[in-house]
This record gives sequence, C-alpha cells and structure tokens, in this order.
Amino acid sequence: MTTIDNDTLVKWRREFHRYPETGWAEFVTTARLIEKLEAMGHTVLTGESIINPAFVRGRSPAIVEKAKRAAKERGIDDALLARIGDYTGCAVVFDTGRPGPTVAFRFDIDCVNVQETDRNEHAPNREGFGSTNPGYMHACGHDGHTAIGLGVARWLVENRDMPLKGVIKLIFQPAEEGVRGARPIAESGILDDVDYFACGHLGCDIPSGVVVAAPERYLSTLKMDMRFKGKAAHAGMEPHAGKNALLAACNATVQIMSLPTHGEGMTRVNVGVLKAGEGRNVIPSFAEMQVEVRGENEKINNYMTEEALRRAKGVAQSFDVELETEVMGEAVDFIPDDEMTAYVTDIAQTVPGVKEVQRTMNFNGSEDATLLIKRVQAHGGKAAYFVVGSDIPAGHHQAEFDIDEKQLFTGFSIFTGLLKRLSA
Amino acid sequence: MTTIDNDTLVKWRREFHRYPETGWAEFVTTARLIEKLEAMGHTVLTGESIINPAFVRGRSPAIVEKAKRAAKERGIDDALLARIGDYTGCAVVFDTGRPGPTVAFRFDIDCVNVQETDRNEHAPNREGFGSTNPGYMHACGHDGHTAIGLGVARWLVENRDMPLKGVIKLIFQPAEEGVRGARPIAESGILDDVDYFACGHLGCDIPSGVVVAAPERYLSTLKMDMRFKGKAAHAGMEPHAGKNALLAACNATVQIMSLPTHGEGMTRVNVGVLKAGEGRNVIPSFAEMQVEVRGENEKINNYMTEEALRRAKGVAQSFDVELETEVMGEAVDFIPDDEMTAYVTDIAQTVPGVKEVQRTMNFNGSEDATLLIKRVQAHGGKAAYFVVGSDIPAGHHQAEFDIDEKQLFTGFSIFTGLLKRLSA
Amino acid sequence: MTTIDNDTLVKWRREFHRYPETGWAEFVTTARLIEKLEAMGHTVLTGESIINPAFVRGRSPAIVEKAKRAAKERGIDDALLARIGDYTGCAVVFDTGRPGPTVAFRFDIDCVNVQETDRNEHAPNREGFGSTNPGYMHACGHDGHTAIGLGVARWLVENRDMPLKGVIKLIFQPAEEGVRGARPIAESGILDDVDYFACGHLGCDIPSGVVVAAPERYLSTLKMDMRFKGKAAHAGMEPHAGKNALLAACNATVQIMSLPTHGEGMTRVNVGVLKAGEGRNVIPSFAEMQVEVRGENEKINNYMTEEALRRAKGVAQSFDVELETEVMGEAVDFIPDDEMTAYVTDIAQTVPGVKEVQRTMNFNGSEDATLLIKRVQAHGGKAAYFVVGSDIPAGHHQAEFDIDEKQLFTGFSIFTGLLKRLSA
Amino acid sequence: MTTIDNDTLVKWRREFHRYPETGWAEFVTTARLIEKLEAMGHTVLTGESIINPAFVRGRSPAIVEKAKRAAKERGIDDALLARIGDYTGCAVVFDTGRPGPTVAFRFDIDCVNVQETDRNEHAPNREGFGSTNPGYMHACGHDGHTAIGLGVARWLVENRDMPLKGVIKLIFQPAEEGVRGARPIAESGILDDVDYFACGHLGCDIPSGVVVAAPERYLSTLKMDMRFKGKAAHAGMEPHAGKNALLAACNATVQIMSLPTHGEGMTRVNVGVLKAGEGRNVIPSFAEMQVEVRGENEKINNYMTEEALRRAKGVAQSFDVELETEVMGEAVDFIPDDEMTAYVTDIAQTVPGVKEVQRTMNFNGSEDATLLIKRVQAHGGKAAYFVVGSDIPAGHHQAEFDIDEKQLFTGFSIFTGLLKRLSA
Repeated sequence: MTTIDNDTLVKWRREFHRYPETGWAEFVTTARLIEKLEAMGHTVLTGESIINPAFVRGRSPAIVEKAKRAAKERGIDDALLARIGDYTGCAVVFDTGRPGPTVAFRFDIDCVNVQETDRNEHAPNREGFGSTNPGYMHACGHDGHTAIGLGVARWLVENRDMPLKGVIKLIFQPAEEGVRGARPIAESGILDDVDYFACGHLGCDIPSGVVVAAPERYLSTLKMDMRFKGKAAHAGMEPHAGKNALLAACNATVQIMSLPTHGEGMTRVNVGVLKAGEGRNVIPSFAEMQVEVRGENEKINNYMTEEALRRAKGVAQSFDVELETEVMGEAVDFIPDDEMTAYVTDIAQTVPGVKEVQRTMNFNGSEDATLLIKRVQAHGGKAAYFVVGSDIPAGHHQAEFDIDEKQLFTGFSIFTGLLKRLSA
Repeated sequence: MTTIDNDTLVKWRREFHRYPETGWAEFVTTARLIEKLEAMGHTVLTGESIINPAFVRGRSPAIVEKAKRAAKERGIDDALLARIGDYTGCAVVFDTGRPGPTVAFRFDIDCVNVQETDRNEHAPNREGFGSTNPGYMHACGHDGHTAIGLGVARWLVENRDMPLKGVIKLIFQPAEEGVRGARPIAESGILDDVDYFACGHLGCDIPSGVVVAAPERYLSTLKMDMRFKGKAAHAGMEPHAGKNALLAACNATVQIMSLPTHGEGMTRVNVGVLKAGEGRNVIPSFAEMQVEVRGENEKINNYMTEEALRRAKGVAQSFDVELETEVMGEAVDFIPDDEMTAYVTDIAQTVPGVKEVQRTMNFNGSEDATLLIKRVQAHGGKAAYFVVGSDIPAGHHQAEFDIDEKQLFTGFSIFTGLLKRLSA
Repeated sequence: MTTIDNDTLVKWRREFHRYPETGWAEFVTTARLIEKLEAMGHTVLTGESIINPAFVRGRSPAIVEKAKRAAKERGIDDALLARIGDYTGCAVVFDTGRPGPTVAFRFDIDCVNVQETDRNEHAPNREGFGSTNPGYMHACGHDGHTAIGLGVARWLVENRDMPLKGVIKLIFQPAEEGVRGARPIAESGILDDVDYFACGHLGCDIPSGVVVAAPERYLSTLKMDMRFKGKAAHAGMEPHAGKNALLAACNATVQIMSLPTHGEGMTRVNVGVLKAGEGRNVIPSFAEMQVEVRGENEKINNYMTEEALRRAKGVAQSFDVELETEVMGEAVDFIPDDEMTAYVTDIAQTVPGVKEVQRTMNFNGSEDATLLIKRVQAHGGKAAYFVVGSDIPAGHHQAEFDIDEKQLFTGFSIFTGLLKRLSA
Repeated sequence: MTTIDNDTLVKWRREFHRYPETGWAEFVTTARLIEKLEAMGHTVLTGESIINPAFVRGRSPAIVEKAKRAAKERGIDDALLARIGDYTGCAVVFDTGRPGPTVAFRFDIDCVNVQETDRNEHAPNREGFGSTNPGYMHACGHDGHTAIGLGVARWLVENRDMPLKGVIKLIFQPAEEGVRGARPIAESGILDDVDYFACGHLGCDIPSGVVVAAPERYLSTLKMDMRFKGKAAHAGMEPHAGKNALLAACNATVQIMSLPTHGEGMTRVNVGVLKAGEGRNVIPSFAEMQVEVRGENEKINNYMTEEALRRAKGVAQSFDVELETEVMGEAVDFIPDDEMTAYVTDIAQTVPGVKEVQRTMNFNGSEDATLLIKRVQAHGGKAAYFVVGSDIPAGHHQAEFDIDEKQLFTGFSIFTGLLKRLSA
C-alpha cells in the first residue's frame, strides 16, 4: 500500500530539476530533503555522522560558500543550514524495531556543470521547470534518483506495519559526479552493518521498458588535479629567465595522453581541463590540469595512475617547475552478487511497463557507488546495481538531456520490491 | 616658465596609480584626463576622432562594460562617459595660431593585469596610493607617463606666449599593453601632418640618472588568439567519438614553441595563456590560446607569424578540429631619425640630475609607439623614442615594481626641451 | 603408419634454426624445402604460382639481393634459385586422385630480426645449432612449424593408400612476421577451392601439454611506413631555411601514440622504428617511421588507421614537409568455425602428452593466417587455428626464446589427425 | 720566391678531393701529407705528440678500423700507418734556428658525410676528380685548406734564407667537422708557446675577390649524443610491459627543440639525427639522438647545454628509461685581436685578385679553431681568423658544393704574407 504514484515522483523530480546544485554544494537540495523526510516522520542524519571529512575530495571552499549564500537567498533558514554544516547530503536510518537484515539504498543528488539548453522543445523548458541555476543542470538524472529516494522513504513509513523488519538505510549522497562523495560516506562506517545494498541509475543508453539487472565493466578510476608552478618572466626581454609551467603542462598532457594501453584489459585516460598562464607576453608561471585515468580493474587503474604521475614528475624535472598533485575522486570496479542480481531480475519482470530484463551490459564508465558496494561486500554484505532504461533525447551530460519521467515509478517499484523481498 | 615641479607630477602619478585600468577600459583615467586638460583650457578630442574602430583589437566588450559601470560607481558623470563613448584615450591638439611645425608626443595610460603586492615596504603601500582596483596595477610606469603628459599640457598653456609656433598634439593612448591601441590611432589619421614625433619610457632596466637617446631592437610582433573547436564526448564510454581540442592546443603549443629561430636576427615566441576543456571526464571540445611572436624586423616577424599559423593549421587537421585565429595586437621595429636623436641627446645632457646620456641599448621588447612612428615617418616626419632611466625595486610587470618618482621631472624636461627647440 | 618420429622433426627444426632468414629472404630455407619435398616425391609450386606480386608488401629488394648472394655462397645452385625467382615460399599440392574435399594447411618459414643470445645455457648454443646468420634468429618457432610441415608432407606420401581422398595442399608461407606474406598467397587464388583449412602455432605463453583449440581476439592490424621529406639547411647559419622532417616525425609519433582508444573494443598503436636526419648540424631533411595499428575488429582497426593517417597528414602540413605512406602488412580478425574447432578438440584429446585441451584464449596479437582463413571462409570453406603449448625460457621474439622440441610431434599429430578425419 | 703557383695548389686540392675522409678517419690524407711534407724536407709530428687522447671526442673505433683497412687497400704502407697510429692529423714544426716569434697556422683536413652529386656539370665530375669514397665528399673546402697548407710548407723551405726567424708551426688538424679535433690538439700543449696564430676558411657565402678580415659571431657550441635505453615488449600482447625509448626520444626532441631563446644573445639548437627501435611491433628499447646547442657566447651556450640536459633527464624519468649522454664536440666564441686583424687587412689589400677587404661579417656558425685561438690567447698570443671569399655553386655541405680554385692562391698569399710580416 502506498500513496506514491508516478505523479508524485514527477512533482518532486521537477522541483529538484529546477534548482540543480553541483557536488558538495547541494545545500538547497539537502535542506529540502531534510524538510520533506522529517515531515514524513523520519529521523535524518547529516554532516559528519555520514561523512568522514578526512576522505572528502574535490570540494571547493569558494563554491561551497557561494552555495551557502545562495541557499540563504533562496530562503533556507539558518538553523537548517547549521544542521547541514559543511558537508551536504543526508541519510535516513529507519529501524523497524523488529529483528531482520539491514538493507541500504543509495540515491545521488548532485548535478553536472552544464548550461541547460534554452530550446523550447526541451521538456523542462516547455513545462516550466528548467534550471534556474545558471551553468548547472540535472543532466544525468540524479533529480530522478532523488525523487525515487523520497518515494521509497514515504513508502517505508506507509508500510511500517507490513510488518517490515530489520533496519533500512537511505543514503542521499552528494558529489557523485567526479566520484567524490562515496568514499567519505564509506569511511564514515554507516554501511558496515549492511547485509543488502542496492543502487540504480536511470538512462545509460538503455531504452524505456528495459531493465539491466547487473551491468559489468565499471571502470576503476582515479581523478587527479595536477598543478605546475614555474616562474614568470618577460617573454621578449628575458625568455631564458622563466620556468614555463604552461609548456610543462602541455608536454605532460601530450605524454599522459600517450600512456600505453594495458595488455590485460581496458584503459582510459583524459586530460579534461587545462588552464595556464597569466598573460600573452609573460612566460607562464602556473598551470593546472584535471586528469582522470581508468582501468578495467584496480590493478590496471593503479598502473595508469602510477604512469600518469611518473610522466608528470618527469616533466616537472624537465622544465624545472614544481608539481603538486591532489586526488579529486575515485571509484573501483565490482562484481555484482548473484543473489541480489536474481532478486532484481525477478522483481523487475513483474514491474508493469518493463518489457525486458537484460542480464548485463558494458557500463564502460565509473560510478562511486562501487566504493560503497566494496565496503558492504568487505563486511559480508551483498550488493546490486541496476539500470532502469529511459528514452533520452540526448546523451548524459548534454544540454538537451532529459529522462522519460514514466520510468521514475519503475525505479521506485524495484527498490520497494527489494524491500518486500528482503525486509518483509 | 612653468608652475610644474616634480611634486605636481608626483601627485598626479599617485592619483593614477591608485586606480589603474586595463587596456580599452581606462574610463576613469580618461575622464580625469579630460577634466584636468579642460580645466587647463585645452580642447580635448575623444573617441572616433582619434580612434579608427576598424583597427581596434584585443578589446573585450565584457571588460569594457564592467569598467564603464565601475566608472559610474566611482562618480564619473554620464555626460563625460557619453563623450568618451566606446573608446578610451584622448588627445589635445594645441594650435598656437602661428606658422610652424606640427609636433606630437604620445603618453600611454593603461595598466597591466597584475595584483599589486601587499608588502608594506612597497612605496605605494607605505605612502597610501596602492592600487584600489584588484587584479590591476600600474606596474609598467604608464601612470608616470600620464602624469608627464599632463605636465607638458600645462606647460603649453603657460608658455603659449614664449611664443610657441605651429601645432602641438599630445596623444594619451589607451591599450599600449598588448600593443593594441596605437594602430587605430595611426589609422585615424591624426598623426599624418606631424613633422616631429617623440615618445619616452621610464625604467627599462636603466638606472636613475641615465637617459638612452635612441634604443634599438624594438621587436616587431604579432599577437594572436587561436581557438580550437572540437567535439565533446564521454571520456570513458566513447573516447573515439570526441575531437579533442585541448590535445590539439597542447600539440599546437609544443609545435609553436619549437619554431626555428631565424638566421638573420632575433626571434621570440610565446604561448602565454591556454584555457581548454569543460570537465575532467569529457573529451574537451574547445581550447583557446594567447600567442605572440616577435622578430628583429618585420620580415622575421612575418616569418614567425606564418610558421605559427602553419603549425596551428596542421594541428587542426591532425585532430579534425576547427581553428579560428584573431589578431589581437601588433607592433613593428623602427629606425630612429638621427636629427631627433641629436636633439634628445643635447637636451638630456642639460637636464639636472642626468648623469649620463647613453646613445643606445637593446630594447628587446615590443612597443606599439613604433606604429605611430612608422606612420609619421611614412608621411615625411621624424621621430625619437627615448628611455628615462629609473631605479626600480622589481622588474616591469612584477607585483613589486615601482618607479623612482624623481625621474618624472626628467621626462617632463626632455619633452618640454624638445618643444623649446622645435616649437619656439 | 609413418616413419616420422619426434627425432626426425627435431633434426629438421635444428637445421632450419641454424640458418634463419627474414621475410621475403628465405632463399636457403625455400631451396632446402624444395629439395626435401621433391625427394619425398612431391611436386612443388614456387614463385608467382603461389604469390600474387601485386600484393607483395614490405619486401626490400636490397635485402632480397643480399639473401640471394648469401644463398649462392652457401651452395644453393643457380637452377634452384632460378626456380624460386623473386618470391620465396613454396607449396605442395597433393592430389590423391580420389574424390574428396580439399584440405589446406599453412606453415610459416621466416625468422625475426633478433640476434640470438650467446649464452651457453641456451639450448641451441649448447647443442650446436644456434643461428649462423648474424642478426637473425628463429625466435618465434617458425623453424618448428616448418619441420612439422615437412613431417606432414612425408606422412602424406607414406599414407597415400590409407587411402587418402581429395586434395591436400601444404603452404610454406614466407614473411609471416610483419604480416606480409599471406595476402599475396590469398590473392594467388590457390586457396579458393579449399574446404577445410588449418594452421597452428607453437608456444604463445601456453605451457607444454596444453592445446588451445580456438584462440580468440586476433587483432586486425595495418602496418604502415611513413616517410617525411623536408629540406636540409645549416642548423647554425639558417635554421629558418630548413623544413625539419625529424621534428615532424617526432611530433607525428607523439600524436599517433596518443590516438584515443575506442569505446567498442581494444586498440593498439606502435611506432616501432624511427630513423631521421643526415647529421648533427643539419636541419634534418628526411625521416621514416614504421607504424602499426591494431583493433579488436576491422572497424576499430580502420578507425585507428584513419586517425593515424590524419595525424601524419596534419603534421606534414604543420611542418611543410611531404608525406609518403606505404602499406607494409596487414591482418584481420576472424571467427573460428565450430566444426573445425570440434575436430581439433577431439583429436588433441587423443594425442599422447596432451594433458589439457583448452577451448580458447585471448591471442591479443596479429597473425596473417587470418587473411587466408577469411579467403577460405569467403569461398564457403571452414577454418581452424590452434595453439600447441610449449614451455619457453623467454618470450617470443626475445634472444633467449626456445621451444620445447617434444611439442613438435604434438603439432604433427594434430595436423595428421585432421587428415585422418577429413581426407581419409 | 716560390715555385708555388695556383696550378700546384689546384693539383693537390684535386688529389685530396678525390679521396675524402671523415673526421678521425683521415689515414690516407694524413699519410700523403706526411709523404709530401717529408719529401720537402720537413720533420713531421704525428699521433699523441699533437693529440691528447683524453680529449678525443666523437671518434668511432669501427669507422677508424674500416678507414685503416681502406688505407691499406689503397697502398698506404704499414710503417706509415704505424707512425700515424690511432690518431690522424700531423704537424710541421719549422725551426729557423734564428730568434723570433712562434707563428702557427691551422689547416683542417677532414670531409663531410655527403654523397657527391653525379651530375656532369659538377666540376669535380667534369674534370675527373670527384669523390671515390662513396658517401663522403669534400663539401666544405677543407681539401683546399689542405692544399694551401702544403703550399705554405713548401714556401717555408724555399724561403728559409729570406732569412726567416723564430719557429713556424703548421697544424694539419683532423675532425674539424663536428668540432672534435681542435680540443685534443689544444690540450697537447703544442700551441702554448705560440705568439701569433692564424686560420682561414674558403667560401662562407662570401664571393670570390672579397676577403673578410675578422668575422664575428662564432657560436659557442656543444655537441652531445643522447642515448635512451628502455625495455622491449610485444606491442600487441603487453604494451604496458615495455619502456618506450623511442617515444622518450621523440618527447626529448620536442622538448629540446623548444628550449627558450636567451635574452642576451643568439641561440641555436638542433636534433640532427634520431635512430630508434628494433622493429615495428616491438615497444622500442633504445634510441639515440645527435644533438647540438649553440650560443652567442659561452655563458649562453652553457645555459643551452644545461637546459637540454635537464629536458633529457626529465624525459628519462617520465618514461622510466636510462639516459646516457656523451660530449661529441665543442667550440667557443672568440674575439679577434686587432693587431692580427690589421695585418690580415693590410696584406689582403695587396693580394692580386682581391677587390675588397671587408672588416667583418656574422659567421653564425661554429668552428673549433676557436679553441686553438683561446688557448693561444690564454698564453698571451694573438690570433686571426679570416675568410677568403669563393663563388660557390651550392652551399657548404651540399652535394653540389665546389670552390673557386682560383682563390687557393689568395689564401696561400695571405698566409705567406703573414709570415713575411711576422717571421721575416
């Protein structure tokens, strides 16, 4: 029994879509989740009770402060902001009071740094819920994930007397983009007693009506920033007096982009952003690069990481510049547990509107839920990660991305189906 | 006879130092110049009467608009801003009404994009006239040049009945940094009737007490922006689908920085700024580079320009990305006229405090006054460019740069000495 | 019934090991094969009857001429050399005179450009059959393949009255290294009537006692030479007058080695050899590169080929040098036929000494037998490619490589097993 | 009085032209010089009496051995070869027995590694004295220098009773190309008592009839070989297992070719030769580069040297390969002594056929006579280096280079003119 229908999920999703926030800056999003969850009757955990600050990465204090100010301007009250503190995200721990397993689900809540299209055909524009936060957009479906999570939260309260047993944890995770938010959650220990863990994603180039029970080939990845610091000099008068950080970065890029592939499996490498130099006629004294490597497994990813660092260090020596590197995010590969895969498969086959349950697919991307999964598996728990297909007008992270809102209920149904199986 | 003494020049210099403005954004500076010059009784030309818009380069509308707003906030009134219009800088044309030669001097008024040091030992801080415009600083001495120009303007009025003869033009040029402002002034035609032209610079690694009458080796230069446009793609899922503009730019940089030198004379090349990429996990779809080449003369500079463009075009083909190039500034070399050099030498030797008049030095930099000089020479006029030595605590364009204010009067004395010789 | 035992195969293998010859230069090897095959009573085809010259690639006339002279010096008589003509390799077409299928096997006969170790522990040295052709070595096992082929040839004669039926063709292929020799054999048409085709390889990191019935992941590949032609100039006096082919090649290498991987499957790229420049103080006027690309399938390989050429063309434009490219070799991927895989599996399981028949493995290399296989399959035939494991003291192509000679008989047994099944 | 006329010089020049030998391999050349000089009555020094082996650079034992064998084949007898020993070149020390200054001249005797053109219009072909040593050619005029030196030697004997006074030393230096031979001669001490030293060069883009008394801008230079040693691996099967020396060398080249120029004077850099890699499908395990840097003076040259090495070391670290560097040659800049310049000027003006004596020119190249000159100057002696103009059909080091043989006598006349002035 539930009062949740697709319209409810759609309403929530659109509310989140209208105000997307980037990783570690989800203050409005987190505040609204707390308000809604507490209104349902849940106790909500925030801040360092779910986030281990020692493992927070890729968090810009400047962006955080700006987001806090924006949250105030949008009317989020100070007490709520104080509860959130420095770290966004929140979690519900729903203790049924009855003996039973601990089940946890993760929903990611951040957006991507993309300016939403202004074309009127784009449904969020046509229907009036396009992004009001310039430069940011829910272009990866996390608005839908968040809405599904809220639906599950209400379902819990409504079905407490099914009776449900054990403990259910709902993690609303910040900063999935850049694979930053999962590690500090894992390291908070909140999942260490979890017996069953599940996570899902909308879209992923799978059409509406199809569910993939156990995608494979999550790539291990490491995200690094590299910063070179050299010495400025007048480019006309004394070019020899400079230490050219820009040229170092260009050579590092050229070297890193030619890392050899690995005989044992897939590799990826990207220098996605490069910014360097203070002026046209100055030997550039600084450069910063956003780098990521990936590998089909941790061993290969570690190989790529080491080689990328080796190249950067060598270049720093070549150009007599200083090198500073910072880990900005990480994710691993994982192997889904057959038991959980079987549950997802069975359940999905009974969800109305699901025409096909596909066993697997190549994910070929990275997802930091894998760090949560590995933590759960390391403590003896079992895990699933499934994809809920959704027709999309444009690829993930693109300005015209949108989800097929009808699939929100599909996702909700699989999660609640798992609860009926595991917690009832 | 003049009421101008060094203290007057210092006062003005400090006023301009306190509010430095970057090229094409000198609205406060220009407004104050107009006020002061008109208060002296001069007629002041502005906007398109001295600037040919077709040759304006390296002007950012966004920066201009921001500077206009800042000027309003600092109290510059709308009528004055309207007179300035879109193009900063101004000129005095002082017609004595008596037959005689036309003499023109140029004073540059813009600053550089450097954050002034906050160390207290730095004189502008100690004396309370440090930059109040964050990120900008008069770190090249143009504040002093501007003050000297104002001094000369007042001297003209005070000495009208010497009597002076002919016409005297004082050009307060915007956007010398980046060698952008001179070309549109030259193309306005304002210098086409000039018989004698002079320009000077403070500092240039020449100590206080020394004047260099005719520096050599002004480098011809071309400033170009290069923009590569590729195609974004998910770096994990389909790296092959992208067209990597960042990697193209890095390879273009590597190729351009290795342009061969020229057997016939000095060359320089710099990629001073590089910005590329939208995100760590996206094959970068755009990149922009700020490039400059220089050569000991126009032929060598043209060779460098052609080769740099050739490299960029080849790289665009290699990476299947689009290339857009834009000229952002330019300057040429020049040969000083012996007659003017002799005048400067003679005059400088009589200026109190000048201990040595050096014939020449290697300038080894670029200066867009050369374009004005070439224009004057092309119409039969004669030109000089001299350096007024000044002890400096740090090199030009550095955060701790400062000038020896006592040398302001030296500069003033040479300019007015030329007028006594040529216009009296 | 056969007189062939492992000792016979070992004797032949050692004879070929002692005088290894590189691709298209196997004159001594071919001459000895002809002599031995004719001594057994076979008719031997040579030259253009099995090689279509229009598709011969990667053949150096200078090396061929040198090899011919060396063959004469080693006593190969002129008549035999004349029969071989310009193209090495030979084939036996054994017509039983009885109706039946056409079965073909391929044995490759060339060596690699490696100097054999002089360490005494190395078996060929200890047993006195090390390479006597400096710089060349049978370091890939083709000496063993050749010996096995000879064994099969004698078996055919000995078992003619089994009775055998149909036609059996034994192809002794030159120039497998560099994947050069198969294409011109395929294009000669000699395999167009083949119903069953098989080929095998010793070693491949599979231990002695294991046979792999149907390896997968043969990489499609294209081998290209790239030559840049620029213009020499004195590097001190007029560096600007040169067109630097060496620097072009280095940039091409850097660009080609950073070709993006492909989202749909494995890629490889290598610039294996680079030679450039005429002297230290000369702007280099020429450069040549030996390049290869590979892809998990033809589509990916074509993508890599196009991108590598695109990079090279762009670099040629960047440096204003001429580019010449030449295809030097090629191979494709293939899918083994289940029927043949089943035969190999069944037979191998009965061969004494075979402890395990493994279904598949990742080959992860290229093999030009795939071109023969594709030709056979295109004409309706079926094909197998199997690996006969062999303990090896060092990897293929290394100076200390050697094969476990006991496995020669395993290979021989599988080939003759296939004949008993298909031709008896 | 002398029996030397231009025809004699031409005859000798053609003899040396016919058999050019590369640096440290001038065994035939040295042998013939010894024979001719001894026939004139001179005592000839060879080997370690003029060469300090500790400073011999850029000498290939393989090339030396081959040249010795070739010398034997050409009939040079064993006794003569034994006298030459391992080091080519020779010197005459002509002691007049009368008190007077020590005067030394240097003549370089080696050729360049260029294949002489086979075009018939090329005078050496038309007249039948083209190079008979394939791949080598006197394409820099050293054949002419050698002939002039022989002429001066005979003149000495003929004019002993002028009377000549003091000591005259004639140095026939090996290995000027690559600036290798001068340093070990300087370090032998043979010039340490020299009061006046002179050296000359034919050609240098100065036309026949012109003599340049004191060229300037000899570039300091260092010639280095760089060798990278990595690890081979199969490029398809395990690309990650290799250490790519070829790619390291390409990156080192790219980095070294983009060394910044120097604000204080001219720089040059060249990677003239690059050889790397064992085969197309092998991750290349070795690479070698021939590098040279130059600077307008020693300080700038040292800067270039340090930066080039820094780049190479950084690249070695980047690619985890070993780096080995070896100095192969060197030269310095120098300042001619006015006294000697005046002598040359005076004398040249009296030489028939000299239409103009030009004071100076930019040499813009390197010449290891500078090391001899610096040694002489360091011991208080004075030095000149002059250029004897010669119309040339093609630039130095090109296949169609030739000298205007009429200028041989001009060179001879200046050297003997100096002796008449200094030693008579």
